[in-house]
Amino acid sequence: MGNCLYSATECCDRPKNTNIRASFPAVCFVWQIAMIILFGVFIRYDEESDTHWVEHKKSHNITSDAENDFYFRYPSFQDVHVMIFVGFGFLMTFLKRYSFSAVGFNFLIAAFGIQWALLMQGWFHALDPTDGKIKIGVESLINADFCVAGCLIAYGAVLGKVSPVQLLVMTLFGVTLFAVEEYIILNIIHAKDAGGSMVIHTFGAYYGLSISWVLYRPNLEQSKHLQGSVYHSDVFAMIGTLFLWMFWPSFNSAITDHGDGQHRAAINTYLSLASTVLTAYAISSLFEKKGKVDMVHIQNSTLAGGVAVGTAAEFMLMPYGSLIVGFCCGIISTLGYIYLSPFLERKLKIQDTCGVHNLHAMPGVIGGIVGAITAATASTGVYGEEGLINTFDFVGAFAKRTPAIQGGYQAAGLCVSLVFGIGGGILVGCVLKLPIWGDVADEHCFDDEFYWEVPEEEEHLPPILEYNNHMVMNKRTDLAEPHYLEPQT
Amino acid sequence: MGNCLYSATECCDRPKNTNIRASFPAVCFVWQIAMIILFGVFIRYDEESDTHWVEHKKSHNITSDAENDFYFRYPSFQDVHVMIFVGFGFLMTFLKRYSFSAVGFNFLIAAFGIQWALLMQGWFHALDPTDGKIKIGVESLINADFCVAGCLIAYGAVLGKVSPVQLLVMTLFGVTLFAVEEYIILNIIHAKDAGGSMVIHTFGAYYGLSISWVLYRPNLEQSKHLQGSVYHSDVFAMIGTLFLWMFWPSFNSAITDHGDGQHRAAINTYLSLASTVLTAYAISSLFEKKGKVDMVHIQNSTLAGGVAVGTAAEFMLMPYGSLIVGFCCGIISTLGYIYLSPFLERKLKIQDTCGVHNLHAMPGVIGGIVGAITAATASTGVYGEEGLINTFDFVGAFAKRTPAIQGGYQAAGLCVSLVFGIGGGILVGCVLKLPIWGDVADEHCFDDEFYWEVPEEEEHLPPILEYNNHMVMNKRTDLAEPHYLEPQT
Amino acid sequence: MGNCLYSATECCDRPKNTNIRASFPAVCFVWQIAMIILFGVFIRYDEESDTHWVEHKKSHNITSDAENDFYFRYPSFQDVHVMIFVGFGFLMTFLKRYSFSAVGFNFLIAAFGIQWALLMQGWFHALDPTDGKIKIGVESLINADFCVAGCLIAYGAVLGKVSPVQLLVMTLFGVTLFAVEEYIILNIIHAKDAGGSMVIHTFGAYYGLSISWVLYRPNLEQSKHLQGSVYHSDVFAMIGTLFLWMFWPSFNSAITDHGDGQHRAAINTYLSLASTVLTAYAISSLFEKKGKVDMVHIQNSTLAGGVAVGTAAEFMLMPYGSLIVGFCCGIISTLGYIYLSPFLERKLKIQDTCGVHNLHAMPGVIGGIVGAITAATASTGVYGEEGLINTFDFVGAFAKRTPAIQGGYQAAGLCVSLVFGIGGGILVGCVLKLPIWGDVADEHCFDDEFYWEVPEEEEHLPPILEYNNHMVMNKRTDLAEPHYLEPQT
Repeated sequence: MGNCLYSATECCDRPKNTNIRASFPAVCFVWQIAMIILFGVFIRYDEESDTHWVEHKKSHNITSDAENDFYFRYPSFQDVHVMIFVGFGFLMTFLKRYSFSAVGFNFLIAAFGIQWALLMQGWFHALDPTDGKIKIGVESLINADFCVAGCLIAYGAVLGKVSPVQLLVMTLFGVTLFAVEEYIILNIIHAKDAGGSMVIHTFGAYYGLSISWVLYRPNLEQSKHLQGSVYHSDVFAMIGTLFLWMFWPSFNSAITDHGDGQHRAAINTYLSLASTVLTAYAISSLFEKKGKVDMVHIQNSTLAGGVAVGTAAEFMLMPYGSLIVGFCCGIISTLGYIYLSPFLERKLKIQDTCGVHNLHAMPGVIGGIVGAITAATASTGVYGEEGLINTFDFVGAFAKRTPAIQGGYQAAGLCVSLVFGIGGGILVGCVLKLPIWGDVADEHCFDDEFYWEVPEEEEHLPPILEYNNHMVMNKRTDLAEPHYLEPQT
Repeated sequence: MGNCLYSATECCDRPKNTNIRASFPAVCFVWQIAMIILFGVFIRYDEESDTHWVEHKKSHNITSDAENDFYFRYPSFQDVHVMIFVGFGFLMTFLKRYSFSAVGFNFLIAAFGIQWALLMQGWFHALDPTDGKIKIGVESLINADFCVAGCLIAYGAVLGKVSPVQLLVMTLFGVTLFAVEEYIILNIIHAKDAGGSMVIHTFGAYYGLSISWVLYRPNLEQSKHLQGSVYHSDVFAMIGTLFLWMFWPSFNSAITDHGDGQHRAAINTYLSLASTVLTAYAISSLFEKKGKVDMVHIQNSTLAGGVAVGTAAEFMLMPYGSLIVGFCCGIISTLGYIYLSPFLERKLKIQDTCGVHNLHAMPGVIGGIVGAITAATASTGVYGEEGLINTFDFVGAFAKRTPAIQGGYQAAGLCVSLVFGIGGGILVGCVLKLPIWGDVADEHCFDDEFYWEVPEEEEHLPPILEYNNHMVMNKRTDLAEPHYLEPQT
Repeated sequence: MGNCLYSATECCDRPKNTNIRASFPAVCFVWQIAMIILFGVFIRYDEESDTHWVEHKKSHNITSDAENDFYFRYPSFQDVHVMIFVGFGFLMTFLKRYSFSAVGFNFLIAAFGIQWALLMQGWFHALDPTDGKIKIGVESLINADFCVAGCLIAYGAVLGKVSPVQLLVMTLFGVTLFAVEEYIILNIIHAKDAGGSMVIHTFGAYYGLSISWVLYRPNLEQSKHLQGSVYHSDVFAMIGTLFLWMFWPSFNSAITDHGDGQHRAAINTYLSLASTVLTAYAISSLFEKKGKVDMVHIQNSTLAGGVAVGTAAEFMLMPYGSLIVGFCCGIISTLGYIYLSPFLERKLKIQDTCGVHNLHAMPGVIGGIVGAITAATASTGVYGEEGLINTFDFVGAFAKRTPAIQGGYQAAGLCVSLVFGIGGGILVGCVLKLPIWGDVADEHCFDDEFYWEVPEEEEHLPPILEYNNHMVMNKRTDLAEPHYLEPQT
């Protein structure tokens, strides 16, 4: 029987070739060499990270090194960095047999994406007209991390169903789209989006969902047995959840204005997240049998408040406003896991492995709307004359904007992110449908086996059995030879 | 036999109803709505996180945004935040089948408590007399985290034995008591307690121990099989231990004076903790058979030095003084695990799951005493004229205090924290004894099964068995149907 | 058969006595008491952490507490601290049955080493000539962490093969050698080494490899079954990898110059590490069958770029220069795991458990060379007049150095670190060969069992079996009694 099984497996495998020994290294090498050349041509240190800082200080009358932007942003940068690599990476380790890919490919595409992001964002935002170079500093590093966050959110939607080569392609296009979309929203429309509810979360989630829709796998229930978690994989995922949750105030405040801007964004996010936790637990318990709590909700929906407060975090949202945003998102996100995700899969053919629609898409849209409303209702009474100008950057070409008009532009920004996410996702999805990327068959989804050297599991049936002369098969790849578990006679 | 077993289980279950589907969501919702209302009425941004900061800077002649308190305290705040959510959460994951509750309920009650703490501490410390509002900034967030730490310590004593509803009630009262006690100790008595040896650790530990004493479970040995760890749960707990250990210098220095105050507190804590590690290992090896080290001691006693140096961290304790404090606490705490905990359980009927008596109570009391002695022996020779005044805040109504008198008040502060901890704990324990909170029966303690959807364990008896046509039961809840593990014939 | 097996085991055990109940606590106690005495005699707070800071500010015309070095370095310090305890500790948890020792003994020797490092480095660098005291501040804490990093790298080479007492001895000598070597390289030769490519990584790796060579175990294949990983231990190791990877920019920038120095070092390290990830994945996939990726490479080789950019991180290496360094090191390090490690073990008798030769030794040497070249090619055109002087500290006795000469001295520094690493390692290896340190026999290597109380594994063969009246042996130490797994009849 074992042999039959093996043949059948081989058969099904044939049309799908998961051997990426040629394509995967080739993409990595070509790409990295291209990056070196482009960095050589375009990227230089900015005046705060260059050895000429000492002269810059003198010419700008700066008396203290503490005025270097590094000291305003570096602690937040490191927190964001942890969110990107440990937060997103471990959040996705919940699957019983896909933890290597979750944390490992997250690592790969983030490292890949940040380099391209520095270039793309640099060309749009930081090109020095005097010498045609992009000047980078700590804020560029944060923005590159932000940009990559959009692609990692998209990874959540397709987790377990795509090959690493597909992920790299998806990231390449994702970063490109992100940079364009971001430029339109922040620079042309001049919407504010400190924590990226629109620019990062809405875009990233719809980008991933659209790709997942195009790559729909009708027979995915064949790998149903691998779609759940085991006890310890759920605990690993909580590492991701908590680092995201704890450092989200840094995420939303990382690139806001020095002083009150960063201070206020951190407070608003802290409060919104606290509120979300309570409603996520409440809804989870209310809708599960016997009032038990579901780990999936706790791992994900507790974060919705951070997403939704992203745009308005730097505004005078007020502490109670933050609590209200978190309150609503905890409810909506958890209900999304219970009712909407099954509906999306059955009716709309969108298979959303991590439920990014509940964690990023809906809260992101809510965040955009909250931002628009908060901006539209801003007044000099609350913000102060100068405060209003500083907060919304009503300077230069935008000096004549009123809060009401700004509210409209905020809403326009949300639409742009939706269009880029959905449109871009469908296009990139079509590219990824080409049969050249080494993706697995439906019945082999959610299995590290096909892209990783997975260790034997000799631990699980321990010494006793062997001492009784049983042959025990533990190596997961060894299905060809049947092994018998017989009693000692 | 399986059926008998199942019926018996059902039987025992009957008197204890762990269905919290009504009470748990109700408490969360009511509470969160109350918070929104109270925040709406009372809580506003302080002048450093408000958009009026730009005017505040001008009126106060502040030239740089770097003077905003945010930049002095935010890195420490984030470290404290990690201690609260990852540190305390993962430290308690050591039990083989209670990791979800450990990290999950820790998350819940901390998110619940910080909101109430902002209000309670605000009313006592930060009420603006001009408009009756509480003004919050980054220091308020740190203090809210500190306040919650007390309740999380108490959770350690009752871990595995209470329901989430009981935990919420315990946190509600705990935060309230904390705020009052803190006001008495810091404001009325004017004792100093930078790292909260008295205010946080002594109070929190005795609060939890008293509750555990009132809720004594005589038949707890019925869940003995779940009171141990497994290999990987111990590794998870080390994540908690290490993040607490590493960030403790931030904890003790987070709210001390800018400049030398924060600097010195960090150094003292760093040294004390290093010293504790060595003596904890030494005692553990000395008292175990064959010189083996016990993970329980390493996970907990290595942290005792951070607790004990809390009060005196900002004083001129001297580097060698910090080492001595750590040296003693490593010994006392480890011996506590070996001798005192069994004694407390057998004789005093105090069941202390995580050994908070050894990690927080004793080191907390030692910390209070060390603080009193260090304060009493302070002199202008060591501190300098201004340094002495700054360190002990001998200003305003307290301008005439001498170090010796201050030492007396420090000791008084310790007594207040003991009284509040023990008294409050007994009162709250009586409330929690009411049979309405959905707690589990003695034989079901330390089991996630009753409050969480726990994943099946199909991983542990892998494919082989199935390929040989064995029916294998892995779902832990499925005890009703007997399954047979038969050889292939 | 079980009994035979047991007797044989006992037999082999006899010549190796792993009982460290006397020696281990004795070393810890004596050592910690010595530390207290030496700290009492020598160590005091520096002017920035002393209560006299208020007077120091006035006398030095410092207007803001933000000028206290604490605020420039504390966030980086905490990141480095995480790398030392969580990063190095968890990186080594990959072995299936050595996670307790990996993270636990890493914790012990780091806590032990930082105290001795404060003294040793203090005597060489920070002895105040006016009063003969060592004055410590936050930079001293970072340097102590750095110093210990060298010993933890060495631990990686001997992981699983030495007793905790041997580790303590190894750390004691390692820190001593480090401080001397560091003094020669940084102060006498006046080489620059911000991130310690030479001082930390080259020295540490060759120190450990030389010890491993002296302690060669010819029969190590007897514990082959414990030299691999299991699924979840590999995920734990990724925690270590990621925290090292994420915080490496803080490591390389922690003690560089305020302002542009720290800023530039962080950027260079960020870029180099991103580049390394891509080439490490590419080579791993290219050289494994079917293009699968190997976790060992991902856990380790992705970090090589951080090591190699250590020396030059504060120089004007340029963003593309950083990418090139990372590019090369990802390739070399991964190839090292595939080809060089087996060669070293077979031919040179160097058993390198964690492959520190690939992760630290080779990239460290490359880092030294890159540093020498970058220094030698420095010019006022790129650095600016003042910038060149600031970056290379061409002041005082070294005011007349040119970049070319500096390049030569950098190369000399690399040689010093090699000589100290190899020479010191051989000497200390001989000391550790004495049969008094309680190390395990070859067949018991890589097993926590001999130094830790390891929990029973009752989890792995769950309830079902017991409900069918099977006796199941799970306790790993219980090999003496044979247990039968029989079908229910």
